Amino acid sequence: MWVPREPGQRWWQREVRRRLPVLGWLPRYSLSCLRLDLTAGVTVGLTVVPQALAYAEVAGLPVQYGLYSSFVGCFVYCLLGTAKDVTLGPTAIMSLLVSSYAFHDPAYAVLLAFLSGCIQLAMGLLHLGFLLDFVSCPVIKGFTSAASITISFNQVKNILGLQGIPRQFFLQVYETLRRIGETRSALSLPKAHPWGCAFVTSPPPIFGSPREELPASSPDTSHCRAGDAILGLSCLAALAGLRAMKNRLHPAASTEPLATRASIPLVRSCATARNALVVLAAGLVAYSFQVSGSQPLTLTGSVPRGLPPFRPPPFSKAVPNGTVPFGRMVQDMGAGLAVVPLLGVLETVAIAKAFASQNDYRIDANQELLAMGTANILGSFFSSYPITGSFGRTAVNAQTGVCTPMGGLVTGTLVLLSLAYLTSLFCYIPKAALAAVIISAVVPMFDARIFRTLWRVKRLDLVPLCVTFLLCFWEVQYGIMAGMLVSGILLLYSVARPPIKVLEQGVLLVQPGSSLHFPAADHLRDIIRDRALAASSPCFVILDGHHITSIDYTAVVGLAELLQDLHKHSISLVFCSLQDPVLRTLLAADLEGFRHFPSWEEAARCSEAELEVSRTACIDSTGESSLLPAGLIQ
Amino acid sequence: MWVPREPGQRWWQREVRRRLPVLGWLPRYSLSCLRLDLTAGVTVGLTVVPQALAYAEVAGLPVQYGLYSSFVGCFVYCLLGTAKDVTLGPTAIMSLLVSSYAFHDPAYAVLLAFLSGCIQLAMGLLHLGFLLDFVSCPVIKGFTSAASITISFNQVKNILGLQGIPRQFFLQVYETLRRIGETRSALSLPKAHPWGCAFVTSPPPIFGSPREELPASSPDTSHCRAGDAILGLSCLAALAGLRAMKNRLHPAASTEPLATRASIPLVRSCATARNALVVLAAGLVAYSFQVSGSQPLTLTGSVPRGLPPFRPPPFSKAVPNGTVPFGRMVQDMGAGLAVVPLLGVLETVAIAKAFASQNDYRIDANQELLAMGTANILGSFFSSYPITGSFGRTAVNAQTGVCTPMGGLVTGTLVLLSLAYLTSLFCYIPKAALAAVIISAVVPMFDARIFRTLWRVKRLDLVPLCVTFLLCFWEVQYGIMAGMLVSGILLLYSVARPPIKVLEQGVLLVQPGSSLHFPAADHLRDIIRDRALAASSPCFVILDGHHITSIDYTAVVGLAELLQDLHKHSISLVFCSLQDPVLRTLLAADLEGFRHFPSWEEAARCSEAELEVSRTACIDSTGESSLLPAGLIQ
Repeated sequence: MWVPREPGQRWWQREVRRRLPVLGWLPRYSLSCLRLDLTAGVTVGLTVVPQALAYAEVAGLPVQYGLYSSFVGCFVYCLLGTAKDVTLGPTAIMSLLVSSYAFHDPAYAVLLAFLSGCIQLAMGLLHLGFLLDFVSCPVIKGFTSAASITISFNQVKNILGLQGIPRQFFLQVYETLRRIGETRSALSLPKAHPWGCAFVTSPPPIFGSPREELPASSPDTSHCRAGDAILGLSCLAALAGLRAMKNRLHPAASTEPLATRASIPLVRSCATARNALVVLAAGLVAYSFQVSGSQPLTLTGSVPRGLPPFRPPPFSKAVPNGTVPFGRMVQDMGAGLAVVPLLGVLETVAIAKAFASQNDYRIDANQELLAMGTANILGSFFSSYPITGSFGRTAVNAQTGVCTPMGGLVTGTLVLLSLAYLTSLFCYIPKAALAAVIISAVVPMFDARIFRTLWRVKRLDLVPLCVTFLLCFWEVQYGIMAGMLVSGILLLYSVARPPIKVLEQGVLLVQPGSSLHFPAADHLRDIIRDRALAASSPCFVILDGHHITSIDYTAVVGLAELLQDLHKHSISLVFCSLQDPVLRTLLAADLEGFRHFPSWEEAARCSEAELEVSRTACIDSTGESSLLPAGLIQ
Repeated sequence: MWVPREPGQRWWQREVRRRLPVLGWLPRYSLSCLRLDLTAGVTVGLTVVPQALAYAEVAGLPVQYGLYSSFVGCFVYCLLGTAKDVTLGPTAIMSLLVSSYAFHDPAYAVLLAFLSGCIQLAMGLLHLGFLLDFVSCPVIKGFTSAASITISFNQVKNILGLQGIPRQFFLQVYETLRRIGETRSALSLPKAHPWGCAFVTSPPPIFGSPREELPASSPDTSHCRAGDAILGLSCLAALAGLRAMKNRLHPAASTEPLATRASIPLVRSCATARNALVVLAAGLVAYSFQVSGSQPLTLTGSVPRGLPPFRPPPFSKAVPNGTVPFGRMVQDMGAGLAVVPLLGVLETVAIAKAFASQNDYRIDANQELLAMGTANILGSFFSSYPITGSFGRTAVNAQTGVCTPMGGLVTGTLVLLSLAYLTSLFCYIPKAALAAVIISAVVPMFDARIFRTLWRVKRLDLVPLCVTFLLCFWEVQYGIMAGMLVSGILLLYSVARPPIKVLEQGVLLVQPGSSLHFPAADHLRDIIRDRALAASSPCFVILDGHHITSIDYTAVVGLAELLQDLHKHSISLVFCSLQDPVLRTLLAADLEGFRHFPSWEEAARCSEAELEVSRTACIDSTGESSLLPAGLIQ
């Protein structure tokens, strides 16, 4: 734990410390920590700048919005976060969601960030962090795998230089495959155009729901495709190579020559900052083409210079024919207002938990909610779109040995510096290079083995996995909701139909496998009743409650009815091995004819005695006997 | 069981028999059965006719709609029902719901019956009967208790002769109490008016949602109140007296004089048909006032004569300024389309189960759904509003010894005969008498003891009870939904936070109290991790899985992470007493470092051996020992 708790503090001191985790680590901050945090912060910064530009593209927003979204989270998390490794910022999945719900319109995206922040903050204040437990592993896996495919494929058009591809996944696949020939034909006649398509940015956002990107208006943009494809594939190859290199690098043994030993850290740094390097190289290539007067690449286009203005998020939006009021904007975003904040929190908490477990500290899910909420609300004042914890950058942060959340401060500063001084250079970044950055970031998220693992371990869990995975290609939110619904139904089914062992050994021994809650009450009653009536009479039923840890009133009523019911058929029902709370509940209910034995053996002994008496009574009886079960007379 | 199953039937024969239970009992129908069914059918008929008129009033519809709704259900259930005692028809609670969702408009009410029928039929065909298990006992109790108060209070205005009382419960209470003085003042100056207010029927239904009844326009109606109040209270007293008499009647002992013995069956018949008798008497009183030329009572008013026309339910509705299309009507009814069919099924199945248990036969919940659905769909062709099983009349049916569902045929015929020949007499029935019939029918549904019982037995279940009870006064559907939601949350909470016993006896023994599902995965991991790290090291954790009957993939992942996590701290985690399916799942998952022992003793022996070795290794160690837990070196 990196936030130590001290005994003997007053409650408000503890509360302030819990709400401002920075107070825990700042007083004991050391110079060696600063060195590590600086390195980590700069490394993450070199990753976040190109990724931010690329993810803005995924979200369908102008590229500068990626950078606007990248610094507030770092600063806020530094003060409020409970996990040293986590870095907040734009991510691939969140960008995908934003592209669904913000209609490629910055006003919607910023308002969505504000509202999501409010919801997350409220969840944190209400201690609703436990709700995240209800998102099961198969749902998360199905979602991330589908998202990695969707996001990657969404970038294929940038790599191939295709334009006018629809947003819907299946149409996108169809169109891309149909028009892949265009790339090839364009490859055969590369023709340079000075600035011809250098600034073909995405079409300006239109109010409404522009679910498809408009086809590029100028037909001569097709000339650019050859260059894009070559550059994109080269960048992909470079990124994959650097990544593979990094994974294979081992610390140099002392027996190796000095040159090898010296080069290893260099290679490692290059591999870690590979996104920045590749983008830088691609930018240089584009710049040299530019200088030489020809430009075969689609570039990012001009990025407004400077820091974002500080202003409240847009609570209404001016359109040519009037104003879109707040209510209408909220209505337009619809389910996004539930999906975006929830998924944001889910991603952050999942990442925080993973690294907390790896690096051996504890996180506080509710505090994470507060941090996320504050970051999104504050961010929306700096034109940020919804942000969340980034798995890739958090991993980079952890690997470079970040010591405290101070690393975020460095990263945030680096983003601000880029915004202030480097935006004029960003226009030279080829779109294909950014696409390669995104693809190489999300492809590892696809987990094909999960299908095989689940088949082997728990086949039933394949249902929520497949439902989530398949529906996510249609619409991400439907996939997640359907997956949660399916896993919820499976969960409730297991509660409603608990395993009930029934053994017939002279007496009927019934052993419910778990607690008895109201959906199971009728089921248990029916099973016992049917088996008892079907058994050879006179019958004796022992309900072994040693797996029952709790019971609710509906189940108690069910047992009371069962007792009466069996009594009418002269069948005895006794209970054994009930746990204390359950026994207390049943005693309080004052069931008619309720008998309990501490152990199954005692219950069996009682049953034998009783059956013996009834058998004797039956044989000896010359008239009516009160011991004689009614079932024998009739 | 009154529907015997014969072995050796083909599957389609069995299927036809299951879908048409009448085939089971009709072939063996006897004359003695006919005699019993005739008596029961006539008795129920004498109850249903006055109740139908009264419940139509509750539903805010013209009185004849009560009778229109009372015969189709009887006929259909005779063919398709699986419970001999149940009679379908208008009920107090369903009428209350109809008044909420049909806006006092017959067109809406009939369409609601049709659509509810379709939904119930679909539920039956899809075998969704098990969904009813998710309505817990406290929710049902809270709802019926609140409904009994709401419905009774709704009739107080008719008894006191007050007009223009709003529909909303709280406003109703306020207005009734405020204006109760009017009754008193009216009592002091009774002044007869020939036909003055004889036909003050409810105001004509207006399109939209007339949530409040319009105040009566003619101020001279206040003259009627004295008569209404006197008659209403007398009827209530008579009904209560007859009811009490019936409950106290014992079979005559042979020692009693003949007159006593002869009079007892007579009194019993009177008590059973008390509704019909009271309404008949009140009608005679009203008729004599009418003949004498003065009328101090508010009467039911003219009832259209004859059977309802056979025609499809209205899929659109003509209003003065156009047509209300189907879609709009559906939209207007909104949540009613879920609440009405579900509650109808719930009521029927609950009643059927209760009487099946009492009279010792089985019902088939899905077949009940089919019967209900068909009855509502067919009923809507005869202008019926949604119907369901009636607790009161089913009890009457059972008490008079009905033998087969043939009794329903008799009841239905009686209703048809009333419609054909008696409607001209119905106009003389005073509204106050019908109000007394309703009140005496619903008051016994209020169960005050349930609050005390739950406080004693299971306090947590008071939460859904109180939520349902209180919210039902606001809107019935909110009450039921909130109650189901609360009990669902309590259920999920118990799944997410299963009881986990932790014992520290040298080793840490952890025993989860129930199966491990995904919402509990993190919780279990955190508990074990915290306790293991807090314990005096070196530590050994034994997870006793003997209450775990199933485990899902998320929980398996949680355990895998826990194993790794503890391994890093040199803490051993072993499993013991796992049930077979759980063990298979964990073995399939191939967890790193997974060890299992059949019993807790063996696990403890292993732990002792291991701890001994590590202790020895620690003492003996002069250098690095592979046996030495890392935690001891650092």
